[in-house]
Amino acid sequence: MIRVAILGYGNIGRAAEAAVNAAPDMELAGIYHHNDSLDDMQADVALVCTPTREVEVFAKRLIEKGICTVDSFDIHTQIYALRQSLTAVNKANNAVSIISAGWDPGSDSVVRALLLAMAPKGITYTNFGPGRSMGHTVAAKAIAGVKDALSMTIPLGTGVHRRMVYVELEDGANVKEVEQRLLNDDYFVHDETHMIVVDSVDALNNVAHGVNMVRDGVSGDTHNQRFAFNMTINNPALTGQVMVSCARAAVRLQREGRYGAYTMIEVPPIYLLAGDEESLIRSLV
Amino acid sequence: MIRVAILGYGNIGRAAEAAVNAAPDMELAGIYHHNDSLDDMQADVALVCTPTREVEVFAKRLIEKGICTVDSFDIHTQIYALRQSLTAVNKANNAVSIISAGWDPGSDSVVRALLLAMAPKGITYTNFGPGRSMGHTVAAKAIAGVKDALSMTIPLGTGVHRRMVYVELEDGANVKEVEQRLLNDDYFVHDETHMIVVDSVDALNNVAHGVNMVRDGVSGDTHNQRFAFNMTINNPALTGQVMVSCARAAVRLQREGRYGAYTMIEVPPIYLLAGDEESLIRSLV
Repeated sequence: MIRVAILGYGNIGRAAEAAVNAAPDMELAGIYHHNDSLDDMQADVALVCTPTREVEVFAKRLIEKGICTVDSFDIHTQIYALRQSLTAVNKANNAVSIISAGWDPGSDSVVRALLLAMAPKGITYTNFGPGRSMGHTVAAKAIAGVKDALSMTIPLGTGVHRRMVYVELEDGANVKEVEQRLLNDDYFVHDETHMIVVDSVDALNNVAHGVNMVRDGVSGDTHNQRFAFNMTINNPALTGQVMVSCARAAVRLQREGRYGAYTMIEVPPIYLLAGDEESLIRSLV
Repeated sequence: MIRVAILGYGNIGRAAEAAVNAAPDMELAGIYHHNDSLDDMQADVALVCTPTREVEVFAKRLIEKGICTVDSFDIHTQIYALRQSLTAVNKANNAVSIISAGWDPGSDSVVRALLLAMAPKGITYTNFGPGRSMGHTVAAKAIAGVKDALSMTIPLGTGVHRRMVYVELEDGANVKEVEQRLLNDDYFVHDETHMIVVDSVDALNNVAHGVNMVRDGVSGDTHNQRFAFNMTINNPALTGQVMVSCARAAVRLQREGRYGAYTMIEVPPIYLLAGDEESLIRSLV
């Protein structure tokens, strides 16, 4: 049995716990909150379910204990730097990390890689939602006059998105002024954005999300090859599940002595799965 | 540059040639027909584009020359046996084969593996077509009274398919008798099958194909996770392209000393792609 610890117990940590409990080859090796001591952790792999900006510090602390890590670090522009930074610590401690292992970045990245292999020329559009954008929600909450906010991402096709921002206002805030500040914010100024004042943001909250990835491309010299990947999902449930599947792959790569940090496009898909190799190949290939 | 030879020059061999010519990191190392001598072949990897039943014999002959191989062997029940058989020869000759590297088996297999990692409980339905079924077309041609035939696969959902069989009859053949023989044939007896007599099967031929893969499943303990992968494609063009992308992976695995035969679900997706690792991770993850 693979011993899996969970660090951070928000939406994703709770979803990861359910996925560990459902896995036939894993046992839960403890749930650790943000400020807990990690001294007593006895685990093969730890799922780092902290806020994304704290992933690197916590992952390094775990790797230094010889524990493999999985995270769903989601700042796309900083993924490669995280990979290089964790690779050095993993090599020094004979461990493996799988990073940015959610659905985007994560399983969507694998689909993008596969589509590129199938049709090397062409354009892939990733259309998100409808669903809550964490980054845009945090940005909207920071606007002066906003008490609470929810920013929904609405896909308009070809990678263009509308932002529907539901806000509760502070007492005495001027609607027009708040709206101007929101529309001019860096997070919103480039997209079609609508601000809607509501009595309760909490009443709207919902962790549903989705994606529609489309590629029209060229295989060899043949055009008009058309591909689409669609999903509608519970966001933290999918993120937690992908992290747990990647925990299995991290331990396998460690056993093979292939120490370092990997993104999901660098991992053989079969390593994500429970069950013996022969049965998996017979049933999936 | 990776030197790629092509063995077999039918629809798939021709499509593979176009894909090699379009690849920035490959050069064509010769096209070999079925009965050509392979003595002079100087290649890093050979694409075995022969009929599927001849793949094993030709692949072994090439591996024994130290040349990696890629095939699109498509008899699902025999894939694992082929993998074991070629693995032994690869290990003895420091080579790598990637087998069953088309779209199904092949890229569809990777999608099935990924969906299982994302939602371990649930049912995946693979719906094929509309498009020509090679196996059913050959079976229809073998029916007494049939001069030429084309069997189209029509998806009805949940993995159920209708067979639309277009036939030219031999002179003097009785339509009702031919139809009875067809409907009772092992290939057709389990599916809804329609036989349609036409003047020219050749006038109907078309290499378009498609797939619709659907999974509704459970991530952790969360139900109603819904996924779909769809494509409409030129069949030999996609098969040839996937083989060429896998040729790149075969050479990479050989360079790493990981000799043996692999199905696509055992290969890191990034190995299929041209370009440097850092750029690929930055653009895809």
